[in-house]
Amino acid sequence: MSSADASPGPTRPDGRAADQLREVRFTRGWLDHAEGSVLVEFGATRVLVAASVSEGVPRWRRGTGLGWVTAEYAMLPRATHTRSDRESVKGRIGGRTHEISRLIGRSLRAVIDYKALGENTIQLDCDVLQADGGTRTAAITGAFVALSDACRHLGGLGALAGDPLTGSVQAVSVGVVGGQPVLDLNYTEDSGAEVDLNVVVDGEGRFVEVQGTAEGRPFDRAVMDQLLDLGVAGCARLAELQRLALDGPATPRRG
Amino acid sequence: MSSADASPGPTRPDGRAADQLREVRFTRGWLDHAEGSVLVEFGATRVLVAASVSEGVPRWRRGTGLGWVTAEYAMLPRATHTRSDRESVKGRIGGRTHEISRLIGRSLRAVIDYKALGENTIQLDCDVLQADGGTRTAAITGAFVALSDACRHLGGLGALAGDPLTGSVQAVSVGVVGGQPVLDLNYTEDSGAEVDLNVVVDGEGRFVEVQGTAEGRPFDRAVMDQLLDLGVAGCARLAELQRLALDGPATPRRG
Amino acid sequence: MSSADASPGPTRPDGRAADQLREVRFTRGWLDHAEGSVLVEFGATRVLVAASVSEGVPRWRRGTGLGWVTAEYAMLPRATHTRSDRESVKGRIGGRTHEISRLIGRSLRAVIDYKALGENTIQLDCDVLQADGGTRTAAITGAFVALSDACRHLGGLGALAGDPLTGSVQAVSVGVVGGQPVLDLNYTEDSGAEVDLNVVVDGEGRFVEVQGTAEGRPFDRAVMDQLLDLGVAGCARLAELQRLALDGPATPRRG
Amino acid sequence: MSSADASPGPTRPDGRAADQLREVRFTRGWLDHAEGSVLVEFGATRVLVAASVSEGVPRWRRGTGLGWVTAEYAMLPRATHTRSDRESVKGRIGGRTHEISRLIGRSLRAVIDYKALGENTIQLDCDVLQADGGTRTAAITGAFVALSDACRHLGGLGALAGDPLTGSVQAVSVGVVGGQPVLDLNYTEDSGAEVDLNVVVDGEGRFVEVQGTAEGRPFDRAVMDQLLDLGVAGCARLAELQRLALDGPATPRRG
Amino acid sequence: MSSADASPGPTRPDGRAADQLREVRFTRGWLDHAEGSVLVEFGATRVLVAASVSEGVPRWRRGTGLGWVTAEYAMLPRATHTRSDRESVKGRIGGRTHEISRLIGRSLRAVIDYKALGENTIQLDCDVLQADGGTRTAAITGAFVALSDACRHLGGLGALAGDPLTGSVQAVSVGVVGGQPVLDLNYTEDSGAEVDLNVVVDGEGRFVEVQGTAEGRPFDRAVMDQLLDLGVAGCARLAELQRLALDGPATPRRG
Amino acid sequence: MSSADASPGPTRPDGRAADQLREVRFTRGWLDHAEGSVLVEFGATRVLVAASVSEGVPRWRRGTGLGWVTAEYAMLPRATHTRSDRESVKGRIGGRTHEISRLIGRSLRAVIDYKALGENTIQLDCDVLQADGGTRTAAITGAFVALSDACRHLGGLGALAGDPLTGSVQAVSVGVVGGQPVLDLNYTEDSGAEVDLNVVVDGEGRFVEVQGTAEGRPFDRAVMDQLLDLGVAGCARLAELQRLALDGPATPRRG
Repeated sequence: MSSADASPGPTRPDGRAADQLREVRFTRGWLDHAEGSVLVEFGATRVLVAASVSEGVPRWRRGTGLGWVTAEYAMLPRATHTRSDRESVKGRIGGRTHEISRLIGRSLRAVIDYKALGENTIQLDCDVLQADGGTRTAAITGAFVALSDACRHLGGLGALAGDPLTGSVQAVSVGVVGGQPVLDLNYTEDSGAEVDLNVVVDGEGRFVEVQGTAEGRPFDRAVMDQLLDLGVAGCARLAELQRLALDGPATPRRG
Repeated sequence: MSSADASPGPTRPDGRAADQLREVRFTRGWLDHAEGSVLVEFGATRVLVAASVSEGVPRWRRGTGLGWVTAEYAMLPRATHTRSDRESVKGRIGGRTHEISRLIGRSLRAVIDYKALGENTIQLDCDVLQADGGTRTAAITGAFVALSDACRHLGGLGALAGDPLTGSVQAVSVGVVGGQPVLDLNYTEDSGAEVDLNVVVDGEGRFVEVQGTAEGRPFDRAVMDQLLDLGVAGCARLAELQRLALDGPATPRRG
Repeated sequence: MSSADASPGPTRPDGRAADQLREVRFTRGWLDHAEGSVLVEFGATRVLVAASVSEGVPRWRRGTGLGWVTAEYAMLPRATHTRSDRESVKGRIGGRTHEISRLIGRSLRAVIDYKALGENTIQLDCDVLQADGGTRTAAITGAFVALSDACRHLGGLGALAGDPLTGSVQAVSVGVVGGQPVLDLNYTEDSGAEVDLNVVVDGEGRFVEVQGTAEGRPFDRAVMDQLLDLGVAGCARLAELQRLALDGPATPRRG
Repeated sequence: MSSADASPGPTRPDGRAADQLREVRFTRGWLDHAEGSVLVEFGATRVLVAASVSEGVPRWRRGTGLGWVTAEYAMLPRATHTRSDRESVKGRIGGRTHEISRLIGRSLRAVIDYKALGENTIQLDCDVLQADGGTRTAAITGAFVALSDACRHLGGLGALAGDPLTGSVQAVSVGVVGGQPVLDLNYTEDSGAEVDLNVVVDGEGRFVEVQGTAEGRPFDRAVMDQLLDLGVAGCARLAELQRLALDGPATPRRG
Repeated sequence: MSSADASPGPTRPDGRAADQLREVRFTRGWLDHAEGSVLVEFGATRVLVAASVSEGVPRWRRGTGLGWVTAEYAMLPRATHTRSDRESVKGRIGGRTHEISRLIGRSLRAVIDYKALGENTIQLDCDVLQADGGTRTAAITGAFVALSDACRHLGGLGALAGDPLTGSVQAVSVGVVGGQPVLDLNYTEDSGAEVDLNVVVDGEGRFVEVQGTAEGRPFDRAVMDQLLDLGVAGCARLAELQRLALDGPATPRRG
Repeated sequence: MSSADASPGPTRPDGRAADQLREVRFTRGWLDHAEGSVLVEFGATRVLVAASVSEGVPRWRRGTGLGWVTAEYAMLPRATHTRSDRESVKGRIGGRTHEISRLIGRSLRAVIDYKALGENTIQLDCDVLQADGGTRTAAITGAFVALSDACRHLGGLGALAGDPLTGSVQAVSVGVVGGQPVLDLNYTEDSGAEVDLNVVVDGEGRFVEVQGTAEGRPFDRAVMDQLLDLGVAGCARLAELQRLALDGPATPRRG
């Protein structure tokens, strides 16, 4: 496709404007044992993120004085409309799972000061409890919150040599649906999108990762520019919501 | 051990009487897509159960006119105090996971009339989001609720040849801790138990499964009898709670 | 089922009384290299058990001064009426295999004094050469004999800090077949049993493990009591047979 | 990083200008049996691509009248400076391999008319014989050539319902090295790059895939724009080289 | 080595002459269910072979009217002096196991008339219960006996279109130990052999398979000739023993 | 078959005499990074061999002062007439691959002086780029050349305690096709061969490995003798070609 109209039309299935996020919610402290945890929701997409702190780093990094952050992504079998087989039962991790786990890890590492973290490892487990589009971007956005809590936990133990976070990180999906660039696609939109692009941005609006795919026809530079604009603006709002969540108390799971 | 005192002492870590369940809660309809779903909680133990209905049965059962019910159990990596590696990443299901999946499947099948179910399959996915002891028994007890909702769903579609449920099923752990038989052990109690016994019972108090293990010394018949009594009584209370949950509306997830 | 008659009837397929074991035979020293070995037979069920002694213990146990005992169970592909695929070829251990291996290990460990064993490991390999029901209970009963020989071997080397065996252990299956509680089911009986219960008992008749399953209808407390009685009595006879085998010379394989 | 200078400096390790490709070479017909094959070289990076045609499509696509194109990427163990273990020996495909295989498949499918292809499958095998940076983009660029030959082969058999190729596809890596945006990074440059971006473009300069990663600091929009420009221009030159290769005779492998 | 003396010296560890087999014993009908079975012993080497008959052939052979014979070889973990890990637990078949399974299958297929067998499959499972050298050759020699019984079984059912056996097959190991060519090496000899050669021969002394390896120095043609002579002569004696076993009644396992 | 005529007839598909090799070509230094590498061609069979040197030896050999040589063989999926699935994707190495890898390793180790090599490991990777029969023997013959270059590399580093090569090693296939013994079978011949024999010989014409299989009827001693003669003579010519290749300069890959 070679041209696209970004004006918010009335056409999105859930009535949102083209540049509007779904309702985003962070429930911090959803787990009792994890050093950081959050149930992050983008509309009906729900991802449980646990940040696990452990002393020491993988073998190839020992003795460097530097820390490590890594991530694993997975989906419960019935997170989706129809049940998928478990990867543990199949005996292998699928390509999509691998790819997303790697993306989450890289994205979070972009805002980590390894020296300040010291020889500690933070493992981020992002488990999709329910999927309605945008699970990988919700996972990244939520993982930053869990990671922040894990860093505070380490700070409280006096185990840090400074603030390990050099900034914040957010992610959102953008795409072209029915010829129109839209922000934060749900499953229905995602299934029919002509272009699908995930933007990972830091708190100052700079790019950490960009992954765009023409699902149907290749797309031109004008569309690329519109999508990047939409994505950066959406991430700015997510950054604000992260700040609010992190400034509040760790929400008790039930109220 | 050869003798044990069942009188409720003040000694349980969370102040419960020896024959007292933890707070048990069923949140039906926790997932939007599954034909039946429940978040079941026994104190801090939280298991998300999804019941997925599909037309048809496994190959070996085709053409018999009979349905099938099966189950899979798994734990999120940070359900526990310290993180465990994912079985999908290790590339194999561990023995414990296999064993519990099989137990859950057998337990639910004990109350199923396959003919009434017709050639439909119900798959129960029991994912432990947080573990504080008794995850397998919570899974069975919750799975019955999700299974009931899935049967109602099939009934609403006119896909059944009668009521596929011949009764209800409940499960609870009992054990001997510090010489005292107790009901519904949490993780701390379970770790130090001398005897550990899981009782699966139907709504009329008859046995579906009994699995008992002497963790330390072998135990005598008197202890066995005390534990069976405790377990059967606990299951009667769980049956009542299941009924209440199933009589109410499918709880909205929030509010 | 709610009531069951334990009087020995003439109805068992091989003419046994309800409380009668099959012919049980232990051939000690069936293997030349293993520190303990036995070919144990319960009627046509034949299990070859090898006890392998090695210095040292698994990593997580090092430096504790305590020993370790573990077990693996497997079936030859043509042990059964129709051939099964090899688990090595399928590339994974099935759930049933895992479950039985764990049961055997736990059962034997119940009579082990780890301190007396010192930092030595005894690995019990239980390979079913021919299966006619009750393979797991035959394996446990035979494994105790092989384990005893392995302990004597260690004793002969002066490698022990006392007797590592705190008692003996036996196992037998009991069940309800055609409404009648019976002891030591063969394959034909097992296939049609309404209730199936495995009892693992120590030499003083105390319980080490109990695993009971209602194959058809749930069963009541009276049946449970009858089955436990039958099982404990059967184990007492097995304990006597173990003693006789261990008091005799290691049977030459032929002659 | 927030600003970058695209003027070609003298600083590239092999003396190239910032916007200069390495020597690119296509040897068509490198294999005797494959319906299409090419040895593609970007400098010292050498990828052998084989296009295998088979009648029929995967099960989920049967009866649709539509064809299928898929790809697998792999590296010989000593393609790299130090030897890597074989994934076949490790028993699993790594995340990176999965991710690149999926990228290649998506990229080629973007220029395929499935209806014209009919129910035929073309499998692209991209094996890296020697790696010096940019293996995935070389694979995509070469795969288009092998795919074209495979389509000609099918055309020659009268097995097509039209031209299955709706255009051409090229790919190149761009990145920021030492503060300077450069085209077609070799291994040395890639190892030290601050930003790494792979651009997949069709013959009209429209985007098929864009994947960018901040290896160090996040990067701003100006850098993004410079990199996209460099990549699109590089792909235009690659499209020309593909045309020349496809217009010539299938190069005899020697001489 | 370039020259070797075949005169029987007094030097073999068990006192045998250079051209003397160990005591060879076939116990037919060792298993109750298998259509053919034999416990074959070459001295302390004991292999249990089960021949399983099934109707039908693998998919790639269906509709040809031809039968199929295949084999699998495995070793119990404590067949050897020190325990080996189970391949089922490791999750993969090792190279040696694969290689021997393939050798056994090829060797038996060399004497099969597939047309006479009809579309039936005979699976030969060769499980080494105790290993003292020559397990693969004992397996082949025993498998022929089990195969013969399985063919008789099929004949008894009227399922054959003629005699599926075109001859007999035997195998034995030969080697050079301490400079001397010897027949039927036991484990001690095998460990120190300079040359190791397995000969598979049919009942008329013609070669089915020859696999020779210089364990130390390469060996010359004269040695090769001596070894082939020894092997062919040994196989002739084995053919006689097979005939005797097959002419007798299926040995009852005991008594 | 019992008699065979070795006189070179005009019947071979590519016009060769019965005792004639295909065109054999060694391109040394085909890879830039490997310590030794060769593209070896026997007619249309092309195998890329890389020799990778690493300091140290496997754990079980440490501290012995002895080196180690090992090999892995694999085939690209479209090396053959029709595509094969990748073993990495299937998640297991097949039996044939295992067997050939082991054969190559043993063959090369037959001419290695481990003491002179010191505690260094040389890993030989033999990847078949195109298969037209005789891939394993081409791999062995080429691997000797790559191994020689790797030893020279180690010598140049002063890392050796003498010449690690005690001789040279060559391999070739021989077989009976249409009743005629022939040397160096191509794929067409191999598919129809009645006897297939691989001969691995050292530079003095002594046997390192012999592996012969009757594909159809068993074969007699006269045929065996003819085949061994043909193979030894063919290897003598291969040894000469290896010498020529190693005496020349490492061929630049092009020009």
